[in-house]
Amino acid sequence: MGKNFSDSFLSRECVIRMVSGRFYLSCLLLGSLGSMCILFTIYWMQYWRGGFAWNGSIYMFNWHPVLMVAGMVVFYGGASLVYRLPQSWVGPKLPWKLLHAALHLMAFVLTVVGLVAVFTFHNHGRTANLYSLHSWLGITTVFLFACQWFLGFAVFLLPWASMWLRSLLKPIHVFFGAAILSLSIASVISGINEKLFFSLKNTTRPYHSLPSEAVFANSTGMLVVAFGLLVLYILLASSWKRPEPGILTDRQPLLHDGE
Amino acid sequence: MGKNFSDSFLSRECVIRMVSGRFYLSCLLLGSLGSMCILFTIYWMQYWRGGFAWNGSIYMFNWHPVLMVAGMVVFYGGASLVYRLPQSWVGPKLPWKLLHAALHLMAFVLTVVGLVAVFTFHNHGRTANLYSLHSWLGITTVFLFACQWFLGFAVFLLPWASMWLRSLLKPIHVFFGAAILSLSIASVISGINEKLFFSLKNTTRPYHSLPSEAVFANSTGMLVVAFGLLVLYILLASSWKRPEPGILTDRQPLLHDGE
Repeated sequence: MGKNFSDSFLSRECVIRMVSGRFYLSCLLLGSLGSMCILFTIYWMQYWRGGFAWNGSIYMFNWHPVLMVAGMVVFYGGASLVYRLPQSWVGPKLPWKLLHAALHLMAFVLTVVGLVAVFTFHNHGRTANLYSLHSWLGITTVFLFACQWFLGFAVFLLPWASMWLRSLLKPIHVFFGAAILSLSIASVISGINEKLFFSLKNTTRPYHSLPSEAVFANSTGMLVVAFGLLVLYILLASSWKRPEPGILTDRQPLLHDGE
Repeated sequence: MGKNFSDSFLSRECVIRMVSGRFYLSCLLLGSLGSMCILFTIYWMQYWRGGFAWNGSIYMFNWHPVLMVAGMVVFYGGASLVYRLPQSWVGPKLPWKLLHAALHLMAFVLTVVGLVAVFTFHNHGRTANLYSLHSWLGITTVFLFACQWFLGFAVFLLPWASMWLRSLLKPIHVFFGAAILSLSIASVISGINEKLFFSLKNTTRPYHSLPSEAVFANSTGMLVVAFGLLVLYILLASSWKRPEPGILTDRQPLLHDGE
């Protein structure tokens, strides 16, 4: 029994060490891409759109893209990957659940502040809220995120739920986690597109002439797509998953399926 | 050996019959949603945008949304789910591979005709091509689709590839299959949003006053999202998968993971 335990512990440590190298390389790429997504959005708003303020003006609107990219894409994506950290594979799961919930809560707070920025700007200028498809999809995505967070907190963190209920809801929680990130990307892409059509009309160099602002903001959108795809790949298709006890050696990645 | 084979065959038949009911109910929902996506887009173009032509005019552009929704979302989504048909679980895999490839080829042809429609309209009116983020993401998605189709054809249909190479590429093929559908949805959402801003400016009832066309087209976009999410759920998280021989009873859905 003692030998089995020690063998299992050694093999677990060995596997963790083996995959750690590639994992941290991917983390470095993910961290760089995520930082670039946020920094590029800040630079776009600062350099071409006049910077930031919190006074109901267009400069208040400028917080909206920055906070939505940071909250709904970068922080959300990072928070989703907590259980892919090799350190989370051993020991109790509760601290990692708390970290997963706390990081998602931070992502949600950034998102809500991002929504406050755009609603306040609209209300201040008596512009209509929630009319474009971008806003319909965006608000649906934030609503799904809120439901996902509260259901996840109630079922996976509070102690009342049975193992049966947790096993039943976990694949749904994982699926909606990935689905919400996909919808966030669709919302961000339609938002950047819409903002560029708004900002670059009635100018000497309109959107269709591809001025430097358009190239820069389009590239920012494509970076968001690349970041989102990398998160989804690590989340759904990589083999970096916390192994359940006893199935460490034959663990299959989620999307793995022998031909 | 004979008894094992017969037991295995009976248990396989039994499982197939058990899941078929729920599967076909989901197919009915999927078929209805997919048809509504296409019919709503046709109705939008026919009723509010003047219908269809193939002459370089704005009526030629009207084919673009219809063919992209039909090709990149509805046909693509349906073609992705071939291996989830319970009939595909038994017997040789080759006919189902051929069906999978043929349906995706149909989706690709619709997509290419949809691109010809918009490029011809732009060139006819001397409008710039490929400047908006919608077009950058859309053309990237179609390019990825083309790579995915040719790589899938070369590796999984032609007989030269080893089982080792197929096993290596299959999770990547499945991941990119789902990723391309997600990117198609993002492209469609940004496209509908962009089209409504174009069409509903300089009118008595602009986009922000939510005229009936805007409500209808926004709803079409949300239907496309619902269809895409249902396809991704059946593809990634459902238990409707062709069981590999010998692992029928303990088969886990792709996103299933015991708590």
